Amino acid sequence: MTERVPIAIVGASGYTGAELMRLCARHPGVAIAHVMAKRAAGQRVGDVFPHLAALDLPIDAFDADAVAARAKLAFAALPHGESAPIVAALRERGVIVLDLSADFRLRDPAAWSTWYGGHGATAGDAHPAGGLLASAVYGLPERHRAAVRGAQLVAVPGCYPTAAILAAAPLLAAGLVDPDGLIVDAKSGVSGAGRSPSQATHLPEAGEGIRPYKVGGTHRHTPEIEQELGLAAGRELRVLFTPHLVPMSRGILACVYARPSDASRPTEAYRAELARAYAGEPFVDVLAPGALPDTAHVRGSNRAQVTAVFDLRTGMVLAMSAIDNLVKGAAGQAVQCMNLVLGLPETTGLDQLAIFP
Amino acid sequence: MTERVPIAIVGASGYTGAELMRLCARHPGVAIAHVMAKRAAGQRVGDVFPHLAALDLPIDAFDADAVAARAKLAFAALPHGESAPIVAALRERGVIVLDLSADFRLRDPAAWSTWYGGHGATAGDAHPAGGLLASAVYGLPERHRAAVRGAQLVAVPGCYPTAAILAAAPLLAAGLVDPDGLIVDAKSGVSGAGRSPSQATHLPEAGEGIRPYKVGGTHRHTPEIEQELGLAAGRELRVLFTPHLVPMSRGILACVYARPSDASRPTEAYRAELARAYAGEPFVDVLAPGALPDTAHVRGSNRAQVTAVFDLRTGMVLAMSAIDNLVKGAAGQAVQCMNLVLGLPETTGLDQLAIFP
Amino acid sequence: MTERVPIAIVGASGYTGAELMRLCARHPGVAIAHVMAKRAAGQRVGDVFPHLAALDLPIDAFDADAVAARAKLAFAALPHGESAPIVAALRERGVIVLDLSADFRLRDPAAWSTWYGGHGATAGDAHPAGGLLASAVYGLPERHRAAVRGAQLVAVPGCYPTAAILAAAPLLAAGLVDPDGLIVDAKSGVSGAGRSPSQATHLPEAGEGIRPYKVGGTHRHTPEIEQELGLAAGRELRVLFTPHLVPMSRGILACVYARPSDASRPTEAYRAELARAYAGEPFVDVLAPGALPDTAHVRGSNRAQVTAVFDLRTGMVLAMSAIDNLVKGAAGQAVQCMNLVLGLPETTGLDQLAIFP
Amino acid sequence: MTERVPIAIVGASGYTGAELMRLCARHPGVAIAHVMAKRAAGQRVGDVFPHLAALDLPIDAFDADAVAARAKLAFAALPHGESAPIVAALRERGVIVLDLSADFRLRDPAAWSTWYGGHGATAGDAHPAGGLLASAVYGLPERHRAAVRGAQLVAVPGCYPTAAILAAAPLLAAGLVDPDGLIVDAKSGVSGAGRSPSQATHLPEAGEGIRPYKVGGTHRHTPEIEQELGLAAGRELRVLFTPHLVPMSRGILACVYARPSDASRPTEAYRAELARAYAGEPFVDVLAPGALPDTAHVRGSNRAQVTAVFDLRTGMVLAMSAIDNLVKGAAGQAVQCMNLVLGLPETTGLDQLAIFP
Repeated sequence: MTERVPIAIVGASGYTGAELMRLCARHPGVAIAHVMAKRAAGQRVGDVFPHLAALDLPIDAFDADAVAARAKLAFAALPHGESAPIVAALRERGVIVLDLSADFRLRDPAAWSTWYGGHGATAGDAHPAGGLLASAVYGLPERHRAAVRGAQLVAVPGCYPTAAILAAAPLLAAGLVDPDGLIVDAKSGVSGAGRSPSQATHLPEAGEGIRPYKVGGTHRHTPEIEQELGLAAGRELRVLFTPHLVPMSRGILACVYARPSDASRPTEAYRAELARAYAGEPFVDVLAPGALPDTAHVRGSNRAQVTAVFDLRTGMVLAMSAIDNLVKGAAGQAVQCMNLVLGLPETTGLDQLAIFP
Repeated sequence: MTERVPIAIVGASGYTGAELMRLCARHPGVAIAHVMAKRAAGQRVGDVFPHLAALDLPIDAFDADAVAARAKLAFAALPHGESAPIVAALRERGVIVLDLSADFRLRDPAAWSTWYGGHGATAGDAHPAGGLLASAVYGLPERHRAAVRGAQLVAVPGCYPTAAILAAAPLLAAGLVDPDGLIVDAKSGVSGAGRSPSQATHLPEAGEGIRPYKVGGTHRHTPEIEQELGLAAGRELRVLFTPHLVPMSRGILACVYARPSDASRPTEAYRAELARAYAGEPFVDVLAPGALPDTAHVRGSNRAQVTAVFDLRTGMVLAMSAIDNLVKGAAGQAVQCMNLVLGLPETTGLDQLAIFP
Repeated sequence: MTERVPIAIVGASGYTGAELMRLCARHPGVAIAHVMAKRAAGQRVGDVFPHLAALDLPIDAFDADAVAARAKLAFAALPHGESAPIVAALRERGVIVLDLSADFRLRDPAAWSTWYGGHGATAGDAHPAGGLLASAVYGLPERHRAAVRGAQLVAVPGCYPTAAILAAAPLLAAGLVDPDGLIVDAKSGVSGAGRSPSQATHLPEAGEGIRPYKVGGTHRHTPEIEQELGLAAGRELRVLFTPHLVPMSRGILACVYARPSDASRPTEAYRAELARAYAGEPFVDVLAPGALPDTAHVRGSNRAQVTAVFDLRTGMVLAMSAIDNLVKGAAGQAVQCMNLVLGLPETTGLDQLAIFP
Repeated sequence: MTERVPIAIVGASGYTGAELMRLCARHPGVAIAHVMAKRAAGQRVGDVFPHLAALDLPIDAFDADAVAARAKLAFAALPHGESAPIVAALRERGVIVLDLSADFRLRDPAAWSTWYGGHGATAGDAHPAGGLLASAVYGLPERHRAAVRGAQLVAVPGCYPTAAILAAAPLLAAGLVDPDGLIVDAKSGVSGAGRSPSQATHLPEAGEGIRPYKVGGTHRHTPEIEQELGLAAGRELRVLFTPHLVPMSRGILACVYARPSDASRPTEAYRAELARAYAGEPFVDVLAPGALPDTAHVRGSNRAQVTAVFDLRTGMVLAMSAIDNLVKGAAGQAVQCMNLVLGLPETTGLDQLAIFP
C-alpha cells in the first residue's frame, strides 16, 4: 500500500471516538494525525481510554485550521447540533468529513428542525449548517455505495437505522412487502446511550432488566429509518419504532414486521431476496434457513447478520438483523465509507472477526 | 388465620418448583407437607437449592397415594407430557391440582396434539389425559377469576402468555383494537428456559448478547396466546409471536402491536382502558402516562406493569407489560390461583415487593 | 402482635432507603409513618422507586420535630458526615436512631477524623457529633446482641465489614488464627456504590469486567473491619483490605486469609468453630463441608453463608462469606437491630428467602 | 512477508480453538491449512461458531498423517490427557506443536500423575507421553523467551497461571518479596470453564452472583503456578490459590499477596520493579501509579495489565494483573509463542486493541 492518508478524529472521548481510534490505528491505509476532544483536551488517549494506552496519542482541543494543516480527512464523532458547525468549518477548509452525528442524515432541513432543533423555547431551531445538506451523502454503502464514493461529506447512519434498513430495505425495494404498517422493534446494548453516565445507564438500574424507551414515534432515529426505507420503497412511509435497552454493552437486534405485498408467495421468498440483494456484499451475512441472528456473533466486527421468515399462520413477514452498534452501527461503517471515499478496497482495516464468546 | 392447608409440590428440582417452595414456605394459609422430584429424590431441598436450605425439607419420589394421604392440594411443576398422567393420578384421588405445565392450558385436545404431541414418529400423539381438559380452568385470575374459584384443576398459564394477555386482552375485550394482525414481540430472561443447562443457556454464549428464537409461529406458547386473546376478542384470531432470550436471569417484557378498531380515538384511550379494566386488580399496575414497564421493577414479585400508547404518526397501538416470569409468569400466579381455590384472600402470601436493584 | 411501632426513614431516595421501605412495609411490628429525602421531597415513593409504587407514600423534607411527633424510631440512610447532625437532632428529641452511615461506627473520634473528616483543606475535620459516640452501639447482632438490645443509637455496620467480620471474627475470638497478617479480598456488586451514577458504574464500563479499587489500605471500611476483628481477637490488629467491583447488582463475597495459631490443628477445626459459634444464629448458615458460598444464594435475604477451609499445602486458613450487601449488609441488618431494640423476636419481618435464580 | 506457513488446529470446537482461528485467520505469516475436531468433524466452522462463518473452513476428524502432510505446525486445543497422545503422534511426524492443554506444563511427570492422572481407581496414572516432557518448553515468553524460540513442543500456560505469574514473578526474581506465604486470589469469566454447558455455568445460576470454587489447594493450576513462581524465586514454594467465577464471559483478574523481603523498602519499589522487568515487553502494560487493572480494558487483546502496591498499614505487597483468559491466557499466547518458534516478529498478528466497552 502506498503512503498512509493522514486523518483526524474530533470527539475522541466518546465510545464512537474510541472505536474510530481502535480501527484507524490498525488500518493500513491511514495514519491518525490528530485527535481532539473538548473536555479531555490536554490529556492523552490512554488517560481517557486505558484500553487504547498503547496508541500513545495526545488529545488536543478542536482547531479547524490545525486539522486542515495536518489531515486530509476527519471523522466527527460529536453530539448533534454540536457537530454541524465543526463540520462546516472543516468543509470550508477542504477537509473531507465523515460525520457520525445526526446533523446531515436527514435530507429535509425541516425534518432536522422538528426532530433535533432544540427543546422548549428553542424547539424548531433552524439547521446550523443547512447549506451543506445537499452535498451530504447518507453513508450506508449497501444502499448508496456509488454516492459515497464521490462524497466529500458523509453522514454516517445511526445505529438503529443501520440495523432496520439492512433488514428491511431490500424487501421494500423488491416490492415484496407493503410499505404501510411497518413495525421496527429493536433492542440495543447500553453503549448506544453514549459514555455520559445517567441513572438509566447506572449498572444496578440497567444491569438485570430490559425496558423500552422513547416509544410511540418519539425516538429521533424514526425519521431517519423512514427516509431510507421510503427511498427503498419508492414512496414516503411511516414506521412504528420501539427501541429497548438490553443489559449488555454492545449490539443491536432489529425485528422488522411487515405485511407481504402478495400473500401467496413461497415462504422462502423473503430470505431469498435478502440473499440476492446482498450477494457480494462484504459485510452482510444472510443467514442460512433456520439460523437466527445473535448480537453476540457480531461483537467487535463490522459484519451484519440478516434474515427473514414468513409466518405461515399469520401471513406476516419478519425481517431481522444483528449488528454491533459501535462498529457497523457507527465507527466501522464510518471507516467503510472512508475506504470508499479514498478509493481503497472497501474492507481495508475492517477484517476483524467478531469476539465470541 | 385458621389451620394451614397441607400442600404438596411435585417437580421441586426446577426453578418453578423452587419458587413455589419460596412462596409457600412463607404463606400463612398453607403448610408444605410433601416435596417430590424424580432425580433429586432422596436428597434434601438444600442440596438442590442452597438458597432454600433453611426450609430443611426432604425430597421424595412421586407417589400419588402418599400425596393424597398428606395433602389436600398439589402443585405440579413438571414438563408437558410428563405432567398429565401425574395430574390424572392426583385428581383420581381427589387432590386439587394446580398444574404449571402446558398440559391443560389448551381447551382443544387437537391443539395439544399438534403443538405438544411428540416429535417425528410420535408427532400428533393424543393428549395423555384428555378427559380432564373439560374440567381444567385457565388460571389467569385477571381473566377467569370466578372459574378459578370453583376449580379443582387449574392450568396455570405460561410465562409469555401471561405477559401478552395482560397487555392486550382488555383492549381486545373492549373492542379498541383489531383482532387481526396482532404481533407479540417478547423478551425473556434465561430462567424461562428451565434449569437444565444447554449450549444456548451457557453463560458465555447467552451472557452478553440478545437473540430471537423459535420465530415465525413455532413457539408452543403461540396457541395459548391465541386461545386467550381470542376469548377476549370474542372470535378466533392469530398472533405473530417472536420470543427473545435476554442476558438476564428473570423477567419478561412483552410488546403487543395492534391496529386500532377506530383510528380517531383519543390517544389516551388505550391506557385509560387498561386502567379501567384493572381497577381493583391487586397485582396489576397500570403505569402513569409517560412511564414505561421495566422487568427490573417487578423482579421477585407477583406484580405486572402494563401500559399502552398510541403512535400518532403510524396510527398503531402498542401495549406493553413486564412481569417476573417465575412469579406472575409461573409460581406466583399458581399461588394466586390456589388462594382463590381455597377461598383465601387472593393476595395471601404474595405481598412481597420487588427486589430492586 | 400488638400495636405497630411508628417508624421514620430519612434518606429514602437511595438503595438502602428503598430496601428499608421494602422490609418495613411488610414488617408486622412497625408502620412506616414518615419518609424523607432531600432532593426527592415533594415526590411520592413510586416516582423515585417504581417497584415500591404500591406503598403509595409521600416523601417529605427532613424535619426533626415532625419525625419526633410521628415516629418512635428512625432509620437514617444518609452519606457520612451528612448523617451525624441529623442523628443528633433526632436523639435530642428522644427518637431511637438506627444509623446506616459510617458516622457512629468507629469508637475512636480520631479515627473518624482520619478516615471521614473531609478532603484537602478540610481533612481531619472533627466528628460532627462526637458526643454521641459513647452511646452508639455497633449493630452487628452476631457480635454485640446484648448491647444492641439496650441501645438508643445503633451504628449499622458497613457491607464489607459485615461480610468480613462474620467470616473471621469467631476464628479470632477462639484464638484459632493469628491476628497478624489478615487479608480480606472482597468482591461487591455495583449497588454498593450507591444510586448516584458515575463513569465507574456506567453499565458499558462496569458491566462486563472486574476490577479492584481503593486498594492498599485506602478504603474507608478498613478501620471498621480492624476495630471489630480487633475486639474479637482481644487486641489491635491491621487488615489488608482489597475491594473489587463485580458486574452484578447485589452481593458481597469476602475471602479472609489468615495464618493458624497452631499449624497442627485438624483441618476441620475452622469450619467447626464457625458452626459452633453460629449455632442458634437465625441468619448465619455455616455451610456443609465441601460447600462454598455464592452471593446468588442470599440475594434479597438477610442470610449470610459462611465457611472456612484449611489449605493443607500452605498451612493457611481461608474463611469465606456471602451476603446481600443491601440486606444483611445494610437494611436487613438495620431491621434486625431494630427488632432487638424494640424487644421483638429478632427475625420479625426478615424471613424472606433468597430470590434464586 | 514471505510465504505463509501452513498450520493446523486440533480441537477447533472449543473456545480456545475458536480464538486460534480468529487470530490465525488474520495472521499475515500463517495460513490455516487444516482444522480438526472430534464431534464436529464433517461440519463447517460456521456451523459450530457462527461468528467465524466468513472463514468458510471445513472441520475434519484428527489424522496425524494428514496434519503432517498439510501443516508444518499444529495447535492442540484439547482436554488434558486427551492431548498428550495426539501431541506425541504429531511430534513423531516432525510437526511443531503448540499444546494448549496442561499435559506438558509440569516438568515433573509425578506432578502430572498427582494432579491430572485420573480419578478414583485410575488416580495416579502415568503421563501418557512422559518422554516428551524433557523437550517441552513452558510457553510464557515473558519468562522463557529464549527457550520458546528454540522449541518444537511448547506447553502454552494456563489462564490463571499466566495472570498470577505475570503479576508476581518479577518481584520474586528480584528478591523483593518472600517466596513463603504467597496467596493468589483470582477471578475469572465463565468462558474459562470451556464450552460444555453445566449447571455451574448455566446463565441463571452464574449470571448474577460471584462464587469461589476448588479452594484450598485443589485447583489444577496450583502446581503450575508454584512451578513457575518457584523458578522465579530460585527455590520451591507453595501458593494458596483461590479461583472465583465472575458473571461475565471473559477476563481474569489476579491479586497476589506477598510479604516484602525487606519491610523498609520505598512503597514505589514494587511497581518500579515490574516496570523495569517489563520494559520493552510488547504485551505487558505496567500501569501508572494509582491506576488499577480492569479486565474490561484487555478484552479481546493479547495485552496484560500489571501493577503492584505496598500497603503501608500492614506492610504487605499486593501485585495485580488483568488478562483476557482466552487471548493472553490461551490462544493469543499460543500465537505469540508460534511467532517466536517461526522466527517471526513476536507481535505478528497480535496487534488487535482491546474491545471496550
